[in-house]
Amino acid sequence: MPKPGPFLEACRASRDLWPAWIAELSAETGLSIEYDASGTLLVAHEADEEAHLDKVAHAAAAVGEAAEEIHHDRFREWVPDASPGIRRVLRLLGDHRVDNVQACAVLAAAALAAGVTLNYDVDVERIELLDGGGAEGPGVRIHVRGGAPREADHLVLATGAWSGRIPGLPLLPVRPVRGQALLLQGVEWPWRGCLRSRHGYAVRRGATGLLIGATVEEAGLLAQPTVAGIASLLAFTRHTLPGLDATRLDTLWAGLRPATPDGLPLIGRLPGQPVWIATGHFRNGILLAPWTAREIARQMTGQEPSGEAAGLSPSRFINLPMESEAGSGYTVHS
Amino acid sequence: MPKPGPFLEACRASRDLWPAWIAELSAETGLSIEYDASGTLLVAHEADEEAHLDKVAHAAAAVGEAAEEIHHDRFREWVPDASPGIRRVLRLLGDHRVDNVQACAVLAAAALAAGVTLNYDVDVERIELLDGGGAEGPGVRIHVRGGAPREADHLVLATGAWSGRIPGLPLLPVRPVRGQALLLQGVEWPWRGCLRSRHGYAVRRGATGLLIGATVEEAGLLAQPTVAGIASLLAFTRHTLPGLDATRLDTLWAGLRPATPDGLPLIGRLPGQPVWIATGHFRNGILLAPWTAREIARQMTGQEPSGEAAGLSPSRFINLPMESEAGSGYTVHS
Repeated sequence: MPKPGPFLEACRASRDLWPAWIAELSAETGLSIEYDASGTLLVAHEADEEAHLDKVAHAAAAVGEAAEEIHHDRFREWVPDASPGIRRVLRLLGDHRVDNVQACAVLAAAALAAGVTLNYDVDVERIELLDGGGAEGPGVRIHVRGGAPREADHLVLATGAWSGRIPGLPLLPVRPVRGQALLLQGVEWPWRGCLRSRHGYAVRRGATGLLIGATVEEAGLLAQPTVAGIASLLAFTRHTLPGLDATRLDTLWAGLRPATPDGLPLIGRLPGQPVWIATGHFRNGILLAPWTAREIARQMTGQEPSGEAAGLSPSRFINLPMESEAGSGYTVHS
Repeated sequence: MPKPGPFLEACRASRDLWPAWIAELSAETGLSIEYDASGTLLVAHEADEEAHLDKVAHAAAAVGEAAEEIHHDRFREWVPDASPGIRRVLRLLGDHRVDNVQACAVLAAAALAAGVTLNYDVDVERIELLDGGGAEGPGVRIHVRGGAPREADHLVLATGAWSGRIPGLPLLPVRPVRGQALLLQGVEWPWRGCLRSRHGYAVRRGATGLLIGATVEEAGLLAQPTVAGIASLLAFTRHTLPGLDATRLDTLWAGLRPATPDGLPLIGRLPGQPVWIATGHFRNGILLAPWTAREIARQMTGQEPSGEAAGLSPSRFINLPMESEAGSGYTVHS
């Protein structure tokens, strides 16, 4: 849980926006997004993990988030495949979950219905900031590989782990941090929420799916499952949920999170340019999606940044003037 | 390595048929099959594994198969990702390999070119042995789900792990034994053959592929990768080839081997019926493919079984008369 402050408030605001956002998106598209408010079960095997639970319970209480101790019998009923070695379980009621794959598909459908043009797999070679760019007239020209340049009045940069590598923009200190995950199928539990220990998490996905995540690795832009990564996820699974040994291992994947030096996203305008930045969300991209959308829309329509956005402006990392050699002087951490 | 005897002779004969068979299939189809005669590197970490290598070396010498000790430096050069803890390496020169996926595709193409009709995913409900079946006239009627029955003079049963479950045929004691495997990509080694320890094997596949196998599990007909199965393959990989920790884990799969009570295949005619059996190959299906094809063709054209086929006749498990209730009285081991 983040420390009290504007970033925690952004996270809580965004979490609270999700249910209404899903309802609105469903009304617009006729498509549903799996949403679950059961919370997270934080489990402890060892004494030091129990101590961690105490810290989390205190932190939750300090910011008014609900947490409750779960009795062993209730836990076994909810999660019959869990290890008998789990000594203590804390339920965090404020941790909700959405199916991120469904959410992206439904968002795309809603955007299309609203007249947005979507282009997939576009390889941007360079962003050109045009003379006189700003509130009036064309502001940017986007050069793409194998296609005609495109011009736009405004640009919202929401390019995730690749955000530090867009030639022609200021060098944003966003680096990729790999996360590997796997999906199991055939898991029949009463518990529909998340389960987490210090070593990983398991989150329900659809009728019988269970997603196991996630590694945190500095591996550059190499988004691939690896021998050691999947082995570590399976070790977590077998330690925490030994009843799943014979369960079907369905899918493996790896993704890249956009990380920043201070762990906070970059939300806001590049001073003097028609470019808004919405990246660097690290592990909070889904959580912060509705708040980020609202915040960027707010700022693009001329309002001041909200109080929650304090400290998230990209200018904290940018030495103005912002002209720079395309791509030079910045090495992705690997 | 099998004990000296007809079955070992069948294995050696089949191995020796492969190169010419590949050449013939390639000439017929224009397609190639990856074939490699580098052999197997049998590695030992522990003292008891070294003792096993002694036994294998003796057994190889006893039947005239070449085996040689490989010096540590040479081994490191061939397999740079191998564990420094490997104490001894024995090379078995008689272990060749083919790409089984390519082999099946090329065989299908050759069969099509020869005028054979291939039907995939046909669900056989029952085999009906027709009156007067035998050398003359229609011998069998094959009832399939959702289609018209088909009649044939002769039937060759080559239905692998499902061979014990074909209603209307004698109850063959063939049971499925699951094997899980995984494929890594991006492995650059001089060594192009197989590498094996007591706990698993790694076999090169294509330009940079490495196939890791395989579990041996009694799990009925449930052909799925599991948490425990893939974890065990990754444990073998990390123990034997720790240099592959960051290597891409590409594909998982599970297959079913047809196992028999005595570990030997079922090759030969059902006495008095127009039905030939070619199943129960367990882990030797690819190895024995050309020999099995030749042997079945030989017997179907009226010749006596070869000496290598001694002891493989399905009649060793069948109490004549062979009429039986469809599917009753036989439980698949699970």
